[in-house]
Amino acid sequence: MNSTEIIQSASDTASSCPFASIPPIFWLVPIASIVALGFALYFYKSMKKEEAGTEIMQKIASHVRAGAFAYLKQQYKIVGIVFVVIAAIFAYLGWVAGIQNKWVWVAFLTGGFFSGLAGFFGMKTATYASSRAAWAANHSLDKGLRVAFRSGAVMGLTVVGLALLDISVWFLILNAFVEDASASKKMVIITTTMLTFGMGASLQALFARVGGGIFTKAADVGADLVGKVEAGIPEDDPRNPATIADNVGDNVGDVAGMGADLYESYCGSVLATAALGAAAFMSDPATQMKAVLAPMLIASVGTILSVIGIYCVKVKSGANSKQLLGALGKGVNVSSVLIILSSLAILKFLNLPNVWGNWAAIIVGLVVGILIGKVTEYFTSEAYAPTKRIAEQAQTGPATVIIGGMGTGMFSTCYPVLLIVVGTALSYMFAANWDISNMASGLYGIGIAAVGMLSTLGITLATDAYGPIADNAGGNAEMSGLGKEVRRRTDMLDALGNTTAATGKGFAIGSAALTALALLASYVEEIRMGIAHGVGGGGKADAAVAALGKLGKTLENANLVDFMNVYEVHLMNPRVLLGLFIGSMMAFLFCGLTMNAVGRAATQMVNEVRRQFREKLGIMEGKAEPDYARCVEISTKAAQKEMIIPALLAVFAPVLVGLVFGVAGVLGLLAGALAAGFVLAVFMANSGGAWDNAKKFIEQGNYGGKGSEAHKAAVIGDTVGDPFKDTSGPSLNILIKLMSMVAIVMAGVTVACSMF
Amino acid sequence: MNSTEIIQSASDTASSCPFASIPPIFWLVPIASIVALGFALYFYKSMKKEEAGTEIMQKIASHVRAGAFAYLKQQYKIVGIVFVVIAAIFAYLGWVAGIQNKWVWVAFLTGGFFSGLAGFFGMKTATYASSRAAWAANHSLDKGLRVAFRSGAVMGLTVVGLALLDISVWFLILNAFVEDASASKKMVIITTTMLTFGMGASLQALFARVGGGIFTKAADVGADLVGKVEAGIPEDDPRNPATIADNVGDNVGDVAGMGADLYESYCGSVLATAALGAAAFMSDPATQMKAVLAPMLIASVGTILSVIGIYCVKVKSGANSKQLLGALGKGVNVSSVLIILSSLAILKFLNLPNVWGNWAAIIVGLVVGILIGKVTEYFTSEAYAPTKRIAEQAQTGPATVIIGGMGTGMFSTCYPVLLIVVGTALSYMFAANWDISNMASGLYGIGIAAVGMLSTLGITLATDAYGPIADNAGGNAEMSGLGKEVRRRTDMLDALGNTTAATGKGFAIGSAALTALALLASYVEEIRMGIAHGVGGGGKADAAVAALGKLGKTLENANLVDFMNVYEVHLMNPRVLLGLFIGSMMAFLFCGLTMNAVGRAATQMVNEVRRQFREKLGIMEGKAEPDYARCVEISTKAAQKEMIIPALLAVFAPVLVGLVFGVAGVLGLLAGALAAGFVLAVFMANSGGAWDNAKKFIEQGNYGGKGSEAHKAAVIGDTVGDPFKDTSGPSLNILIKLMSMVAIVMAGVTVACSMF
Repeated sequence: MNSTEIIQSASDTASSCPFASIPPIFWLVPIASIVALGFALYFYKSMKKEEAGTEIMQKIASHVRAGAFAYLKQQYKIVGIVFVVIAAIFAYLGWVAGIQNKWVWVAFLTGGFFSGLAGFFGMKTATYASSRAAWAANHSLDKGLRVAFRSGAVMGLTVVGLALLDISVWFLILNAFVEDASASKKMVIITTTMLTFGMGASLQALFARVGGGIFTKAADVGADLVGKVEAGIPEDDPRNPATIADNVGDNVGDVAGMGADLYESYCGSVLATAALGAAAFMSDPATQMKAVLAPMLIASVGTILSVIGIYCVKVKSGANSKQLLGALGKGVNVSSVLIILSSLAILKFLNLPNVWGNWAAIIVGLVVGILIGKVTEYFTSEAYAPTKRIAEQAQTGPATVIIGGMGTGMFSTCYPVLLIVVGTALSYMFAANWDISNMASGLYGIGIAAVGMLSTLGITLATDAYGPIADNAGGNAEMSGLGKEVRRRTDMLDALGNTTAATGKGFAIGSAALTALALLASYVEEIRMGIAHGVGGGGKADAAVAALGKLGKTLENANLVDFMNVYEVHLMNPRVLLGLFIGSMMAFLFCGLTMNAVGRAATQMVNEVRRQFREKLGIMEGKAEPDYARCVEISTKAAQKEMIIPALLAVFAPVLVGLVFGVAGVLGLLAGALAAGFVLAVFMANSGGAWDNAKKFIEQGNYGGKGSEAHKAAVIGDTVGDPFKDTSGPSLNILIKLMSMVAIVMAGVTVACSMF
Repeated sequence: MNSTEIIQSASDTASSCPFASIPPIFWLVPIASIVALGFALYFYKSMKKEEAGTEIMQKIASHVRAGAFAYLKQQYKIVGIVFVVIAAIFAYLGWVAGIQNKWVWVAFLTGGFFSGLAGFFGMKTATYASSRAAWAANHSLDKGLRVAFRSGAVMGLTVVGLALLDISVWFLILNAFVEDASASKKMVIITTTMLTFGMGASLQALFARVGGGIFTKAADVGADLVGKVEAGIPEDDPRNPATIADNVGDNVGDVAGMGADLYESYCGSVLATAALGAAAFMSDPATQMKAVLAPMLIASVGTILSVIGIYCVKVKSGANSKQLLGALGKGVNVSSVLIILSSLAILKFLNLPNVWGNWAAIIVGLVVGILIGKVTEYFTSEAYAPTKRIAEQAQTGPATVIIGGMGTGMFSTCYPVLLIVVGTALSYMFAANWDISNMASGLYGIGIAAVGMLSTLGITLATDAYGPIADNAGGNAEMSGLGKEVRRRTDMLDALGNTTAATGKGFAIGSAALTALALLASYVEEIRMGIAHGVGGGGKADAAVAALGKLGKTLENANLVDFMNVYEVHLMNPRVLLGLFIGSMMAFLFCGLTMNAVGRAATQMVNEVRRQFREKLGIMEGKAEPDYARCVEISTKAAQKEMIIPALLAVFAPVLVGLVFGVAGVLGLLAGALAAGFVLAVFMANSGGAWDNAKKFIEQGNYGGKGSEAHKAAVIGDTVGDPFKDTSGPSLNILIKLMSMVAIVMAGVTVACSMF
C-alpha cells in the first residue's frame, strides 16, 4: 500500500474519529516532538549532575541566575500586558466585528507562550551550565566542551520540540473542530489559521531580542569602555561593577533572545510552507494533504537526526582546538547528509508531484544556508583578509577602523544577497519544474527550501547556543579566580563557538529571507480568506469578488496572479511604491531606535561605573565590593523602557499602511522591509563580527597587541559593533517576519477597511 | 488668441520651417538659458575684478587651482575613455544591431559633456574666488558674503543655463529630424530620445561625485587625523602636508561633484516629466505639446526668477550672522514665492487640463523640498537636541559618539521618507484629480512636483556652492596668516553655508526621489519604444505585442497597467522580488566600495603625513616646507583607481539584471535601489552632518571645548562622518538615477534579449 492509498483509506474511514482524515504518518510529528523534549530533559538532568564548582563559583553563578530571572520576570510582565491587550483586540475583531478568523486570539497567545517558554528553558539551562562548564574546563578542555555543548543542545532540542508540539496539537485540534463541506477548503482554513500563531511567536521573539539585546549591550559597552579602556582591567574582572550585568546580559540576550527568535523562524517556515501547499494543491485533496504534511515531516525527521548528530559530537581527552572544531562540524555534517537522504525518502513515500524538483529545492536550501555561513565566516573571522585589513587600519586610529568595518560590512552584503537570489530562483524553478509561470508550485519550493535549511535546527542551534554558555563559563572562571589556564580553555571554546555561530547565523538569516518570501505568498492566501469572511456585507470584499469575476474567476479558483491583478499590486501603483519606501524606512527606523536605546543605556552605565570607581575607593584595590545590583538595575530598566516603542511600531506599521493603502500598500511594505531589512541585517551582523575579531586578532599580539594604541582603536570598533551584531542586526530578521505575520493576521481588516 | 489657438495655428503653418510645429512660447527656454549664462559670465567677471589678496594668498590659491585642474584633467581623461567605449557600444546597438534608438550615442555624449562642463566652470570660479573672498572678508563680513555668494551664483546659473541650452537645442534638432506621420507619436519619440542624454549626465556626475568624494575625504581624513588629533595643530595649518590636498578636495568634490550632480537631477526631472506628459496625452497632440512644454517652461521661468532672487541677497555693511542668514533666506524665499505665482500663470496660459491640480502638485513639490531641508537642519544642526545629545555622548568616548550618531541618522530617515510619501501621494492625487486610477496624469503630477522643487535651482545651488567657497577662503586665510578675525568671519560664512546647504540637500535628495519615481514610469514608456524597434523580427517584441493584443490593446494605445500585466511586474513574480533584493543590495555594495576606498586612501594619507612629520624635522617648527604635491598625488591616484569599479557596477547591474530577469527584474531592481538607496542616503547624510556639528558644538566651548577628551571623541565621529556625508551618501542619489537611466537606454536590449 503506497502513501496515496494510505491517505486515501484514512479519509475513507468513518468520520466517527475526529482525526480520521489525518494520515497515520502524521503521528511522526508529535513523536519527534516527544523525542526532542525527552532528550532535552535528559541532557538537562545530566548537566545538573555535574559538579557545580567551588563555593565562590556557585555564588557568582547564582548572582547571575538571580539577575537573569529577575529580568525575565519583569520582561514577561510587560510582554504579558501587551499580549492580553492585543488578544482582546483580536477577540473583538473575530467575535464581535466578525471580520476575522475567530481563533486568532488563542493562536496568538499560544504562539507567544511557547516561544517565551523556549527562551525560558534555554536560559535556565545556560545559567546552571556556566559554573559547571567552567569547572569541567578546569579538568580538561574536552570535558568543558561536552558540558557546554550538551547544555546548548538542551536549548536546541527544546526549541524544536516545543515548536513541533505546538504545531501537532493545533493541527489535531483544528482538524477536529473546523467544519467545511469541502476537504480541501477545510485544509486551507486550517493552515491559514495555524499561520496566525506565528504572530504571537514573532512578537515574543521581538521583545526578547530587543529587550535582551539592549540589556546585554548596555552592560557590555559600559563594562568595556570604563573597565578595559579607561581603567585597564581585564574583561570579567570582579572589580568591574558592570561585570555581573554583562554576564546576565549574555543569558537574557544571546540565549533567551536567540531561543525565541529561532522558535519563530522554525514555526514560520513550516507553517508558511504548509499554507502554500494547501493553496497550491486545492484541486486535489489527497495531494494537498501530502503537501501540507511534507514540511512537518521533514522538520520532524530532521529533529530526530539532530539528536543523532548531537551524539556524534565526541572528542578524545586532550583534543586540540582543531579537533574540537572537527567534532562539532562532524555532528552538523552527519545530520545534514542524513536529512538530504531522508527527505528524499519522505517525498518518495508521500509521492508528492515532482518529487525530484522538491528534493532539489531542499538541497538548495541547505547548501545556500551553509554557503551563507561560509561567507559570514570569511568576512568576520580573523583568519581571513577582510578582518585582518580592519585590524591593520586600527594602526591609524579608531576612525579608520570604523570606516573600514562599515565599508567591509556593506560590501559583504553582496554575497549573501546573490546566494539568496540564486537559491530562491533555483528552488522556485526546480519545484516549478522549470516552468516560471507555475507560480504556486514554485513558491511552495521556496518554502520547502527554507524548511530544508532549518530542518536540522536541533543541532545547529546547539552549536550556536553553546557559545554564550562557554563565554559565561569563562566569565565565571575569571571572576572566581580559577586561573589563567581555565580562562584560556574557555576562551578556546568561545572562539570555537564564534566559528560555529557564523554558520548558525547563516542559517538564521538565510531562512529568515526565504521564510519571509514564503510569508509574502501566504499573505495573499490570507487575503482570500479575508475576502471570504467579508463576502455578503456589500463592502469591499464583494467588490473584490466582482473584480475576480471580471477575470472569469471565483474566489476559490482565483490564483495568486489574479489577486495581484485585482489589487493592482504592480510597480506602477503608487500604493505599492510608497509601501516600498515605508518598508525600507521601517528597517532603518527600527535600527535607529534600538541603537539609540543602547547608546543611551550605555552612557548611563558608563557614568554609573565611573561613579562607583570614583566614590568607592576600595574597589580598584579589591577591598570593597562594587554595587553589581545597581548596574543590573540600569540595564533592566533601560531594556524594559526602550523595547516598547520599536515593538509597537512593528505591530502598527502594517495595520496603518493597510488601512491607508490597502492590500497593495501592505505588500509593498513587506517587500520593502524584506529587501532593505535583509541587506541591512547582513551588513550590521558582518560589520559587528569583523570588528570583534579584528580586536581579537590584535589581542593575539599583532600590531602591538593588548594595550597598544591599535588595540584601543580596535576596542572602540568592537564596542560600536556590539549593538550592530547583537541588538539591531538580529532584531531585523524578526522585524521582517513580525510585520508579515501582523499583515497576515490583519488581512481581513485590510480587505474590509482600507481607505484607497 | 489663447494658447491652444497659438499652438494650433503653429502646427497649421506650412511645414517649410522645420520648427513650425513648435509653439512660440517654447523660445522662452533658450532665452532663459542665455539669461542664466549671461549673468553667470557677468558674476564671474566681476568676481575676477576683485582684489586677489596678498602675494602669498595668490600663491596658495594658485597651488590649489593647479592641483584641482591637474586632478580634473586626469579624471576627464579616464572618463573620456569610458564614454568613448560606451558610446561605441550604443552606436553598434543602434546602427548595426538595430535594437535601439540610433541617436542614443550622441545624446549620451552631449549629456556627459555638458554635465562635465558645468562642473568645470563651477570649479574654475571657486578656485579663483577663494583668495578673493578671503581678502574681501578681511575688509568686512558683508563684503566677504557678497563675493562668496556671487561666486556660488556663477555655479548655480551655469548649471541651469547649460541644462536649458542642452534641452532646447536637442528639442529643436529632434523636432527637425524625427519623422513620423503622427504628430503625437513623433513627440513620444522626441521625448524618450531626449531622456537618454540623462545617462551621459548621470555617468559623468557619478564619476565626479565618487572620484571627487574619495579625493576630498582621503585628504580631509588624513589631514584631520594626523594634524588635529595627533599633532594638535589647527585645521588648514600650512605645516600640515595634506592641507593643500584638503583644499583641492573641497573644489573637486564639493564644487565640481555637486555641479555635475545637480545638472543631472535638473535635466532628469524636466525630461522625465516631458516624456510622461508626451505619453499621458498621446490622444491629443495639442495637449500633448503643452504637457511636454510645461516642465521646460517652469524651469525656464524659475531660472529667471533665480537671477532676481540672487539680486535680493544684499546686506548692509557691519551685518551680523543673523542678518546674513536672513539675506540668503530672502533671496530663496522671493524666488520660491514668485515661482509659485508664475507657474500658475504658465499653466493657465498653456491651458493644460486640470490646471489647479498640476499647480497644487508644484506647490507640494516646493513645500516638501523645504520641509525636508528643515528636517535635515533639525537633525544636523548643533542648535537642536539631536546633535547636542551626540555631543553629550562624546563625554563617554568615541564609541558612544559613533553609536549615537548612527542611531540618530537611522532614526532621522523616517521624516524625509514620510514627507516623500505624503508629497508623492498628494502630487499624484492632485494631478489625477483625486482619481487614483488616473495613473498617467498622476505620474505626470509626481514629475511636475519634482520640477517645481528644482525650478529655483539657480539660487538654491548658489547658496549651496557658496559654502565650500567660504570654506576654502577660510583655508586660504589660515594658510597665509591673515589673522584670527578673518578666519572668524570666514568661519561664520561657512557656518551659514552649512545651514543653507541643509536646505539645498533637502531639495537635492527630495528631487532625486521624485525624479527616480518619474523615471520608473518613463522606463515603461521606453519599453514601448523598445518593443516598437523590435517588432517584426519574430522575437520577444512580437510576443509582447501579441500579449497586448490578448488584452485587447495595441502597442500604441496600451497604458502603463497593460505593460505591467504583460511583463508580470507584480510582487508575486520572483523576477520582481529578486530584482528588489539586488537593487537594495546595490545601494549597500556601492556604499561599501566607496567607504572602503576612502578608508584605504585615508590610511595611505595618514602614513604619508606621519612619514613627513617624522623625516622632515623642520616642518613642525615651520622651517621646512612640507611636500604638498605628494599628498595631492596620493588622493588623485586613489580617486582615479577607486572610482572605476563602483561606476561600472552601476552601469552593468541594470543591463545584467535585464538580460537575466527581463523587464520585471529591471523594474524590481530600480524600485529596490530607490527604496533602500534613498533611505540609506538620508541616513548617511544626516549622521555625517550631525557628527560634524556635534564637533563644532564642543569646539564652541561645551563639554570641555577644544582639546578635551570629548573633543577628541567628537573629531573621530566627524572623521567617520566625512565619507558618510560627502562621498557615499551623495553618490547614492546619482547611483539610483544612473541605474534608471541605464535601464531606460537599454530598454530595447532588455525587451529583445532577456533570458527568462
